[in-house]
Amino acid sequence: MEDSDKAKLKAFGDRVRELRLQMTPPLSQEKLALVSGLARSYLGDIERGNRNIAILNIHRLAEALKIEPARLLEPPTQKSGE
Amino acid sequence: MEDSDKAKLKAFGDRVRELRLQMTPPLSQEKLALVSGLARSYLGDIERGNRNIAILNIHRLAEALKIEPARLLEPPTQKSGE
Repeated sequence: MEDSDKAKLKAFGDRVRELRLQMTPPLSQEKLALVSGLARSYLGDIERGNRNIAILNIHRLAEALKIEPARLLEPPTQKSGE
Repeated sequence: MEDSDKAKLKAFGDRVRELRLQMTPPLSQEKLALVSGLARSYLGDIERGNRNIAILNIHRLAEALKIEPARLLEPPTQKSGE
């Protein structure tokens, strides 16, 4: 996979993580996985930028995070450590 | 596939079509497929709401339409005929 593609997936993962932690109270990966219906391991892969996630799962995450799906494709304001 | 999922894919397809036709000059499906690197038949499927498109292809479409990827996940302002 091209570096630019990896960067796009990582930016999406950072954005999911950022929005997850901005919830009140902040959500754990387990909780977000439960609410969104996605597998916890899959969510972990998404946040690490290892998944080319499709639109229906983007909608599921948005619903669980109580935001418009478009907001998930905005660039993260913070980058995670890795 | 659930009706609500079909509706989400159709909304995305309508949004792509709407933005494609709002370009100056409006782009044909052939031209958008060429510029984005996606197959013309795949793009037709996307606009008909038959594809659960993944994020890297959303980025390719956004680049070809010269917009931010998030704008592609905004609801369409017009619904296509079907």
